Amino acid sequence: MRNIKVNGDRLWQSLMEMAKIGATEKGGVCRLALTDEDKAARDLYVEWCEAAGCTVRVDEMGNIFARRPGKDDSLPPICTGSHIDSQPTGGKYDGIFGVLAGLEVVRTLNDLNYETNAPIEISAWTNEEGSRFAPAMVGSGVFCGEFSLAEGLAGEDREGNTIGAELKRIGYDGDMKCAPRPLGAFFEAHIEQGPILEAEQKTIGVVQGVQGIRWYEIEVTGMDAHAGTTPMERRKDAMVGVARMVGEAHRIGEAAMPDGRTTIGYMEVSPNSTNVIPGKVFFRADIRHPDAGLLDGMENEYRAACEKIAGDLGLGLEFKRIWYSEPVIFDAACVGAVQDAADALGLANRPITSGAGHDAVYVSRIAPTAMIFIPCADGISHNETEEATPADLAAGCDVLLNAMVARANE
Amino acid sequence: MRNIKVNGDRLWQSLMEMAKIGATEKGGVCRLALTDEDKAARDLYVEWCEAAGCTVRVDEMGNIFARRPGKDDSLPPICTGSHIDSQPTGGKYDGIFGVLAGLEVVRTLNDLNYETNAPIEISAWTNEEGSRFAPAMVGSGVFCGEFSLAEGLAGEDREGNTIGAELKRIGYDGDMKCAPRPLGAFFEAHIEQGPILEAEQKTIGVVQGVQGIRWYEIEVTGMDAHAGTTPMERRKDAMVGVARMVGEAHRIGEAAMPDGRTTIGYMEVSPNSTNVIPGKVFFRADIRHPDAGLLDGMENEYRAACEKIAGDLGLGLEFKRIWYSEPVIFDAACVGAVQDAADALGLANRPITSGAGHDAVYVSRIAPTAMIFIPCADGISHNETEEATPADLAAGCDVLLNAMVARANE
Repeated sequence: MRNIKVNGDRLWQSLMEMAKIGATEKGGVCRLALTDEDKAARDLYVEWCEAAGCTVRVDEMGNIFARRPGKDDSLPPICTGSHIDSQPTGGKYDGIFGVLAGLEVVRTLNDLNYETNAPIEISAWTNEEGSRFAPAMVGSGVFCGEFSLAEGLAGEDREGNTIGAELKRIGYDGDMKCAPRPLGAFFEAHIEQGPILEAEQKTIGVVQGVQGIRWYEIEVTGMDAHAGTTPMERRKDAMVGVARMVGEAHRIGEAAMPDGRTTIGYMEVSPNSTNVIPGKVFFRADIRHPDAGLLDGMENEYRAACEKIAGDLGLGLEFKRIWYSEPVIFDAACVGAVQDAADALGLANRPITSGAGHDAVYVSRIAPTAMIFIPCADGISHNETEEATPADLAAGCDVLLNAMVARANE
Repeated sequence: MRNIKVNGDRLWQSLMEMAKIGATEKGGVCRLALTDEDKAARDLYVEWCEAAGCTVRVDEMGNIFARRPGKDDSLPPICTGSHIDSQPTGGKYDGIFGVLAGLEVVRTLNDLNYETNAPIEISAWTNEEGSRFAPAMVGSGVFCGEFSLAEGLAGEDREGNTIGAELKRIGYDGDMKCAPRPLGAFFEAHIEQGPILEAEQKTIGVVQGVQGIRWYEIEVTGMDAHAGTTPMERRKDAMVGVARMVGEAHRIGEAAMPDGRTTIGYMEVSPNSTNVIPGKVFFRADIRHPDAGLLDGMENEYRAACEKIAGDLGLGLEFKRIWYSEPVIFDAACVGAVQDAADALGLANRPITSGAGHDAVYVSRIAPTAMIFIPCADGISHNETEEATPADLAAGCDVLLNAMVARANE
C-alpha cells in the first residue's frame, strides 16, 4: 500500500483540543513536565489511544507506550513519538505534534482496516524540554541507557520536587521497566524550529542527523579602571578583547557555512558600570557542526584566536569546553524510508540537519532512527507565537504514515 | 615669601586620625554623606579649624567654611577645599586630602606668624561623591548656582531620607546663605585617581582643566533565534553588531590619544541565553575629550560607525546622547600660580587634565580656579586600597600653600 493519507482535519482538531490544556493568553501553551497540565494532557492522550484500540503501558520514568498490534506481534515494533511537555512560554506544536501524528497514523490505519506486519508503537517521552527538571530528554535518556533510572527519578525542580515524587503524584509512575528493548525503527516528526524549509518553500525536511554541539565558558580578565582618568594606552579592557572574540566566533561560523554555526548568546560584564573599564567579562560560546572533525577544527581555530587576542591585549584568558553533544547520523534505511515517502507523495523536500536536540538522538543509540521536519512560521519555536499550517502538519503526518507502513511491512 | 613648606608629618597625622572615622577592615573608609560618620568627621574637622584660630560658618547646604583673616579682610578670600564624604568602599585620601591640606596651610601660616593680605578660606563641600544622594557635587553645585537650594535639599537616599532632613539631624543645617559670593581664587588639591603621574614619576600634576564627558545609550535590535537551527546567513545577531561597535569605539579612542577616551563599561544582552542568538543588546558608551570640538568629532564619527554597522547587518539602532558635562578650562593665572609654585619648589611636574569631576568644576563658574594633583598608587581610587605617600601629600600641600600665598598677596 503506497501513498495513503491521514485525515488532516482530525489531526488539526486533536492538536487544537490538546492546546487548550495549559493554553496561554498569547496563544501558546505552558505545560511543564509532570504538572497538573501535563497530567491532564497525558490523560486525554491515553483516552484517545485507548479509544483507537491501542494497548497503553507506562514505564518507571512515566514514558507512555501505546501499541497497535501487527500481523506478527512478535516482531519488534515500528515506533514513533515525541513529547507532551512544553516550555513555560511554549507553542502548540513542539513535541505534541510528534505524539499526535503517531495517534493519527493509528487512526488512519484503523479507518483503512489495515493491518501492518510488525506492530506500531507511539511513545510519549517524559520531560523532553528540561525546563522544569534538568537535564532535558531524560525520559528517552533513561530508556536508552544515557542515565540510570535513579538519576532520572532524582531530577529536582526549583522547589525541590523530584521527578519520582511528581510521577507518583500525577499517577504516571508505571511498573513497566524503563530500559532498552528491541525496536524495529523509530521515526520522530517535529516542526523544524528553524527558518530553512519555510524560506525555501519545502514542505518536508528529510533529517539526516543532528549536529554536534559544544559549549564553552570563556572568562577574560583585564583590570577595572576609571573610564575618565585612565589613558587608552594604559588600559587592560576586557570588553575590547571580548568584542574581538565575538567577531572571531562569527567569522569562523561564516567560514563553515552552510552547516557550521557559532553563537555568543550569554555575557556577563563586570563591574558593568558606565564609567568603569571592565576588568572581567565572562561569556559562553555555542559552536555546532554536523561533522565531528570539522567541529574539532572550529574549536581549535577559535581557541587559538582567543589566545592571540588575549595575548595582543595583555588580558588573562580561561577557555573551557563545558559540554559536548556528539553529532548523530541517522540510520540510512530509515532516512531512505522518509525520503521515499516524501518523493512518492510529491512533496517538496530537502535534506536537513537538526540544529536542536530531540528524543530521537537518544533513541538512535538503540534502534534505527530518522526524523521528519515540517516548516514553522519564521522559524520561531519555544515561543507562544509558534505556528505551523494544517496542510504542512498533515503532509508531515502523511510521510510518517507511509514510512512506518513501509518499514512495518519489510 | 617663597618656597615655604608645610609640616608634612602633621598633615599625615591628621589624615590618619581622620581615617579612623568610618574606617573599614580593608584599610579604607566608609563615610557616606550626612551619616553619623560624616558628622563625626565634620565635628573633628571643625574642632581642628577652631583650634587653628579660624572662624567657622556653615551654610544652608551644610558646606563648612573656615576663615583665617587677612591684613585687608575686606578682600575676597583666597579659597581651597574639597569634601569629607567618601564612597561606600572609599579610600583615605579622596576628598579629605583637599580639606586637610587647607587646614595644614592655615596651621603653617600660624606657625610662621604670617599674615596674608587677603583672607584664606577652606571649604568642605557637602555630598561630593553622590553615592548616598544623587546627584554628585551638590553642595558646591548649589553654592555656584547649578542647582536651586530646594533641589539640593530635596535629594533623597534609598530609604527616602532627604539631604535637608539629614543636615538637620546631624546639626549641619547652617544659616549662612548658600549662594555665590566673590572669591579671590579657588584651589583644590586632590589625588589624581589615575595612573599618569605615578607612571611618569611626577610629583605634581598641574591641572589645566577637566575633560568633557558624554554618555550615550545605544540599543541594537536584531531577532532572537535558536542558535542551533538558524543558519549563519539567516541571522540578525545584535551581539555581532555590538561587538563591532565596541571595536569602533576603541579605535576612535585610540585615534584621539593621548587626550581622548572611549569606554564601553555597561552592557545588557537579551535574552542572555547560551543557545539563543541575541535579539537585543543595550549598552552605554562613555566618550571624553578636553576639547569640545574634538569631542563633537568623536561623537559624529562614532554615530556614523554605529549606523554603518547596523546597516551592514540589517540591525535596528537607537543612539541617544543622555549626558554632557562640558569641558572646563581652568583660569590661566591660577594654573600659572600652581605651575610657578611647583617649579620653584623643584618638584617634578606635568600638565594634566582631570578625567573625573570635582567640586572645582562648579566653583570655576564663579571664581578663578585651578587644581593640584598628586600621584596615587596604581591610579586606584574609589577603592579601599587607595594609597598615596606622605612625601607626595606634603609636596601637594606645599604647592597649595605657595600658590595661595602668592595669590593672597597680589
